[in-house]
Amino acid sequence: MSHFEQELTELKERLLTMASHAETSVRDAVKSLVERDDELAQRVKEDDSIVDRLEIEIDEIAIRLLAKAPLATDLRLITVAMKISHDLERVSDEATSIARRSIELSKEPQLKTYIDIPRMATMALEMLKDALDSFVQRTPDKARGVIPRDKEVDALNKQLHRELASFIVENPDTISRCLNLMVVSKRLERIADHATNIAEEVVYLYEGRDIRHVGKDTLETPPASS
Amino acid sequence: MSHFEQELTELKERLLTMASHAETSVRDAVKSLVERDDELAQRVKEDDSIVDRLEIEIDEIAIRLLAKAPLATDLRLITVAMKISHDLERVSDEATSIARRSIELSKEPQLKTYIDIPRMATMALEMLKDALDSFVQRTPDKARGVIPRDKEVDALNKQLHRELASFIVENPDTISRCLNLMVVSKRLERIADHATNIAEEVVYLYEGRDIRHVGKDTLETPPASS
Repeated sequence: MSHFEQELTELKERLLTMASHAETSVRDAVKSLVERDDELAQRVKEDDSIVDRLEIEIDEIAIRLLAKAPLATDLRLITVAMKISHDLERVSDEATSIARRSIELSKEPQLKTYIDIPRMATMALEMLKDALDSFVQRTPDKARGVIPRDKEVDALNKQLHRELASFIVENPDTISRCLNLMVVSKRLERIADHATNIAEEVVYLYEGRDIRHVGKDTLETPPASS
Repeated sequence: MSHFEQELTELKERLLTMASHAETSVRDAVKSLVERDDELAQRVKEDDSIVDRLEIEIDEIAIRLLAKAPLATDLRLITVAMKISHDLERVSDEATSIARRSIELSKEPQLKTYIDIPRMATMALEMLKDALDSFVQRTPDKARGVIPRDKEVDALNKQLHRELASFIVENPDTISRCLNLMVVSKRLERIADHATNIAEEVVYLYEGRDIRHVGKDTLETPPASS
């Protein structure tokens, strides 16, 4: 393995470390909400800086690698890695936001048993996992499969917003709790967006086709040519 | 001017075109809200695809340029241009979201005269303008000046959220309007975030110091060394 390939491997490994931190943050943030565990929420907030640092490190490695990249496919891989790293950094920010709301929410009695929120979290995390797996395993088909799932998370978020809005109208005392839960739901919806971005980047990387900003409908089924 | 330099100039020009589209979208989205102009809001939604296409074009030019970049500073410029383009694409998305809420809001009587929202929009747009000017004019000091202003927009957003929350409690009939306005306010706050990201990228580009994810307090004053 050449020195360049070694560094490229390091870049990918660093990215996977980052992904694992970001995923843990999301999982722990939702856990802190469901179990009303302020200590865990606090830890999520503190750990955000680890992911921030990893993003900077990945950028530095990437810039160094770009200077020596022999092939156009390497250039593409490196720039995609930078983009994925940026999305992961945002995922970690969303987790921090959830943790913050979780701390706010545990100051008041629990509004209701959380069902949709853990469900959204599971869906968003699976999307993230599949998007990253497709990057590592070079399986653009798997990445393509992530994209339509974004709509399901969007639908759950909208449904939860409606439900919480009628809660407020019925009982205005619940407003701060409902608004906090709306933010949590929105943050989870954004995590699914980031997973979708990553999936689109992976398709672009391995199929050379840019499918960002294409109407969602055309993505539900693979193109006729494949 | 070498062919490489010509292409680099083209990259920068394309980025400025994109910035101008994104800025117009934000301005028009807020105008459509204030003047209850559905047609204008509709146009903002449609124009989003122009910015989407520009992002893809910029990425293509950037990848092509990276393959021939002779110097590390060029590599850095190109990757920063890609990041700025990504932020601008997000700004345009935020504008689209505002336009969508503007259409929803004009279905009901106006809740109140909008004062804070146009103010936030002006602040966010000025931050965006200064961040981009600092990129073109190679003035990292100007970029550094953008960063603390993010806090002011954050504060306005929080204040508006509190105000709208008490509106809902006083009069639950206003809930859908208040929630729509909360989203608009949050979108403007995100635009200021993107401007801050761009400013941080510009500082990194011209000073070689990565100031992303540094505690905001340390950014209020320039470092002792400068």
